[in-house]
Amino acid sequence: MRTIDWVDDAVELIDQTRLPDECVRLRITTVDELIDAIRRLAVRGAPALGVAGALGVVLSDGNRDAVARLRAARPTAVNLAWGVDQAAAWLPQGRRAVLEAALRIRDEDIAACLAMGEQGADLLTSGLLGSGVRASVPPVQDRPDGRLRIMTICNTGGLAAVERGTALGVAQTLHERGRLAEVLALETRPLLQGARLTAWELARMGAPHRLVADGAGPYLLARGGVDAVLVGADRIAANGDTANKIGTYALALGAARAGVPFVVVAPETTIDFATPTGAGIEIEDRGAEEIVTLRGTRVAPEGTDAVNPAFDVTPHDLITAIVTDKRVIRP
Amino acid sequence: MRTIDWVDDAVELIDQTRLPDECVRLRITTVDELIDAIRRLAVRGAPALGVAGALGVVLSDGNRDAVARLRAARPTAVNLAWGVDQAAAWLPQGRRAVLEAALRIRDEDIAACLAMGEQGADLLTSGLLGSGVRASVPPVQDRPDGRLRIMTICNTGGLAAVERGTALGVAQTLHERGRLAEVLALETRPLLQGARLTAWELARMGAPHRLVADGAGPYLLARGGVDAVLVGADRIAANGDTANKIGTYALALGAARAGVPFVVVAPETTIDFATPTGAGIEIEDRGAEEIVTLRGTRVAPEGTDAVNPAFDVTPHDLITAIVTDKRVIRP
Repeated sequence: MRTIDWVDDAVELIDQTRLPDECVRLRITTVDELIDAIRRLAVRGAPALGVAGALGVVLSDGNRDAVARLRAARPTAVNLAWGVDQAAAWLPQGRRAVLEAALRIRDEDIAACLAMGEQGADLLTSGLLGSGVRASVPPVQDRPDGRLRIMTICNTGGLAAVERGTALGVAQTLHERGRLAEVLALETRPLLQGARLTAWELARMGAPHRLVADGAGPYLLARGGVDAVLVGADRIAANGDTANKIGTYALALGAARAGVPFVVVAPETTIDFATPTGAGIEIEDRGAEEIVTLRGTRVAPEGTDAVNPAFDVTPHDLITAIVTDKRVIRP
Repeated sequence: MRTIDWVDDAVELIDQTRLPDECVRLRITTVDELIDAIRRLAVRGAPALGVAGALGVVLSDGNRDAVARLRAARPTAVNLAWGVDQAAAWLPQGRRAVLEAALRIRDEDIAACLAMGEQGADLLTSGLLGSGVRASVPPVQDRPDGRLRIMTICNTGGLAAVERGTALGVAQTLHERGRLAEVLALETRPLLQGARLTAWELARMGAPHRLVADGAGPYLLARGGVDAVLVGADRIAANGDTANKIGTYALALGAARAGVPFVVVAPETTIDFATPTGAGIEIEDRGAEEIVTLRGTRVAPEGTDAVNPAFDVTPHDLITAIVTDKRVIRP
């Protein structure tokens, strides 16, 4: 089941706001419906947003204003603007050419996720990254089962792409190779993509997993037993600084202190060579409501305000490796 | 209004599980009721647990088995066992002597919190800790209003003690002196003591504040504008390693990287000289239910498991200062 696709002249996508309670597919026929779906996170995840952007241009029927609004629907993930631009370049050639370009982007995303999974799993099982495991647990190459324990944040699985995904796609490949011991998934406040989406995907693939409160991630790394931290990316600056879901930076600090490899997994299209460093990445603040309520339940006193940056920036010196569909970069 | 007190031959305490929706006082007349209140966190916070332990011995009527069960109701905060032991030492002298000892502990807690507030506020406004503020914001002594922006986690206010509290008590003293710009309060998953209790207390004292998801704390420190991180403690080992609410260690890593002073505020009774380092502190795991549900709402698929350490240990090298009721320690 693809997270987002082009079916019978419309965009079809899984409404991720309704997971894990129910898996509902939305049928979207206008750019404004798509912008709404993007803003309320019915579709999210950098690679999926790239495909959504490209398919949205098909729905625009060449309306430049609609294309511009779609491109700006969310500011941080570079893939959305990239996907829009790629497809929009074909507008002079007509709708059929735009559709073909968008479907190429969809197919390239599927291939890229498969490649990232293979390269990431190869890297992690090669021993080249070293080991962050404490004395109480032998390095993975010396364990009888040779299985890895992975920590991750947010959702970077098939739901963040068309299929398989980025960081969680590496875990899936490890699982398919019999090399995954467990995924420790951070719940990822405020919108709980880890609890709602990652746990749902891991259960569907039959992979052992446990949830962790975001604040516990760095401490569990310090306690030992995690072999690698795998995260996705919404935008990677030219110097390797990486914007990703809020909480990623804290996890990177914890990994650095514990000596656990910290690996970013993202397609080449997430690298933004026009942005020299992380300081140039715009960080979306999504307002207080997501913090003071939780799935409809109020958790703070009436009138409480909040700061709610949806992403943070991890400086490149905290990143052990960036795995793309084409290569492994050591910042 | 005292968080916990002895009223008409019973322990009276605010049921903190019902805040911020309603402020209800429980009347407790048996040790088993008190153990239940402690386990379900109707009363929590290291200093309040010390007073609860002492008052609980009065309820025990000398039953040694009940005293032992009360002492072990929660393992991490040293104050509970300390309060029980202090009061139990008077059991041979009879109930009146035990009650007098327990009331002394209550009164000493009130005085200790007042002293910590004064000492902490003096330290923070002295400039002795340096400044973690980035170039975009001048150091506090050069700002026209001289007001400090504080980040904190969990609840360390009056609700964690009898009155005023520890780390949040320092913020209250700063506020009373006209030196508080704002408190950034981490919501503190899984039980949201920051969102439910700290925001409630700050609103009651009229102090400016905003909530922050736990994962955003370290990033907001990196972004600049926070003058100090203030946290409480559940147990401080002899070398200064500090057990506190899960998420504290991540915040300490963020403060160290950003150069923001990281200050622990706790009464002397929280220091456990019998435990040489943080490695010897037992960390309570409170089970999956608190993670997979939130105030009664399920947030993860049925059957999802979780790791749920309620506390973490911050190594002493990440701590700028420990403020007690008696002194300022630089680990």
